[in-house]
Amino acid sequence: MTQREFVTICEVGPRDGLQIAKTRMTTDAKVAWIAAIAAAGVPEIEIGSFVPARVIPQMADTQEVTERVAGIPNVVIQTLTPNLRGAQNAYHAGAAKISIPVSVSEGHSRANLNRSVDEQIAEVARVVAWLREQDHYLKVVAGCSTAFGCSIDGVVSTEAVVRVAVGLAEAGVDQLMLADTVGYGHPAQVRTLVRAVRNEVGDRLTGLHLHDTCGLAMANALAGVEEGLRMFDSCIAGLGGCPYAPGASGNIVTEDLVFMLESMGFATGIDIEKLFVARELLHAGLPAEPMQGQLRKAGIPRTFRLAA
Amino acid sequence: MTQREFVTICEVGPRDGLQIAKTRMTTDAKVAWIAAIAAAGVPEIEIGSFVPARVIPQMADTQEVTERVAGIPNVVIQTLTPNLRGAQNAYHAGAAKISIPVSVSEGHSRANLNRSVDEQIAEVARVVAWLREQDHYLKVVAGCSTAFGCSIDGVVSTEAVVRVAVGLAEAGVDQLMLADTVGYGHPAQVRTLVRAVRNEVGDRLTGLHLHDTCGLAMANALAGVEEGLRMFDSCIAGLGGCPYAPGASGNIVTEDLVFMLESMGFATGIDIEKLFVARELLHAGLPAEPMQGQLRKAGIPRTFRLAA
Repeated sequence: MTQREFVTICEVGPRDGLQIAKTRMTTDAKVAWIAAIAAAGVPEIEIGSFVPARVIPQMADTQEVTERVAGIPNVVIQTLTPNLRGAQNAYHAGAAKISIPVSVSEGHSRANLNRSVDEQIAEVARVVAWLREQDHYLKVVAGCSTAFGCSIDGVVSTEAVVRVAVGLAEAGVDQLMLADTVGYGHPAQVRTLVRAVRNEVGDRLTGLHLHDTCGLAMANALAGVEEGLRMFDSCIAGLGGCPYAPGASGNIVTEDLVFMLESMGFATGIDIEKLFVARELLHAGLPAEPMQGQLRKAGIPRTFRLAA
Repeated sequence: MTQREFVTICEVGPRDGLQIAKTRMTTDAKVAWIAAIAAAGVPEIEIGSFVPARVIPQMADTQEVTERVAGIPNVVIQTLTPNLRGAQNAYHAGAAKISIPVSVSEGHSRANLNRSVDEQIAEVARVVAWLREQDHYLKVVAGCSTAFGCSIDGVVSTEAVVRVAVGLAEAGVDQLMLADTVGYGHPAQVRTLVRAVRNEVGDRLTGLHLHDTCGLAMANALAGVEEGLRMFDSCIAGLGGCPYAPGASGNIVTEDLVFMLESMGFATGIDIEKLFVARELLHAGLPAEPMQGQLRKAGIPRTFRLAA
């Protein structure tokens, strides 16, 4: 029997999922939810972002959440940090990995980060340099935001994405994710972009961050995994969206994505029934938030893992 | 400039979409809705089914609907007919094409048609023979139901699907669709099954009929179009489901599917804005029915047809 190939799911619900929620989840509820996600076998969880509380109040407790979940075994606790100061806070709070957003389009870069694209790439280089001077190193993943188009600037060229990816590789990031921040991407574009970026930065290109704005998230994930990518951000119940990306809607649904990957013969290490338990905790913590995802409604088919 | 490849969409909303709706659409509303679908450029529409009214009361007016829409130009009016009597009714009412469901699993065949699989294949042969004796021929498309698994019988083997497909090809059908009646299919299975069936019946295998039960309909459509299939059944607003397939949920959403195909460079002949108009008529005709689909909520992205 051959070993099944592993695909790494990073659950970004506690960060991307909560940041545009109309109501707030309490710190205790967040911690319990994150523990349930880890208990389902999800290997990486983005648990919050170190940004000013006045900008994204839902993330005001990220330091406390990080400190409280950092000891959970068998899971990589990741936080989003837009800059060096955030990275330093994440380091001291006990995060194991940090993600840094870098927009490819100038319009989104200004709106989301109040910096130009090149200024943000330089900031990433500063973060990597600082981390290398510390006692232990945190892995850095950069997310190339608006790589598939921007609701502010419109079309984003393949050349622009490649340029940013090369800049981030030179800045020393460990992993690169292409992010369809507003959900404009389509599968042929996924294939084109993945090939173009990998051609320049190789396997440093790790995965995709997808939104289901136009209903194509799952098809885009399929194109990505078929192109050889082995890491995907996703959100339980498909929550999420960027507050500075007008028109964006929820992330690809973790439950449905895991179902697809496992059905296709990939290993994710995730127990879908336990993912449903984590979904219930999300609902309990944010009862007013609409929940997406087909699998939970339908139940796991009786042919799961048996069909060809 | 190269000619874009054409993918044929068959809108099955007036049949598959309405048959499990809790409320009834009036005949006038159906006719107006079908006219709007045609006006959007949809090349084929399955407008109803010739089945006993006591079995599916929503389809009781199929003869009248067929007669009233048969004259709409530039669209193929298709009706579902489970048997010879239905095919005869469709012929005399003025349908241009008929579809015949043939289950691959015995359990679904019994539940849906009250016949064995082989009895239904023999019925298809009778329909084709009868049609060949008439003044003009109607194209016959057979839908291989439960080809990706069955909520009654469980796993359906590739060999069973191939056997039914070969039987239908020998019965003389013009086109074959593989139907994921209950929405258990996954993309790797689509590729496996399409290759296995095409290996035996060639281009007689035309397309897919997909349900989004587990959230994989769009990924399955992508796998199908990448395997070379050029016809898809779909439903505006993702309505639909089989009354005799427990657990099945709605069809793949026409608007989102057309968006994906057109984004990828295929031609469908369909105007998405006009499809939204047809969607409004559906909502007006069945106001209580939940409407699925991401594209209508998000609006057409500003990068549509401009992105790589």
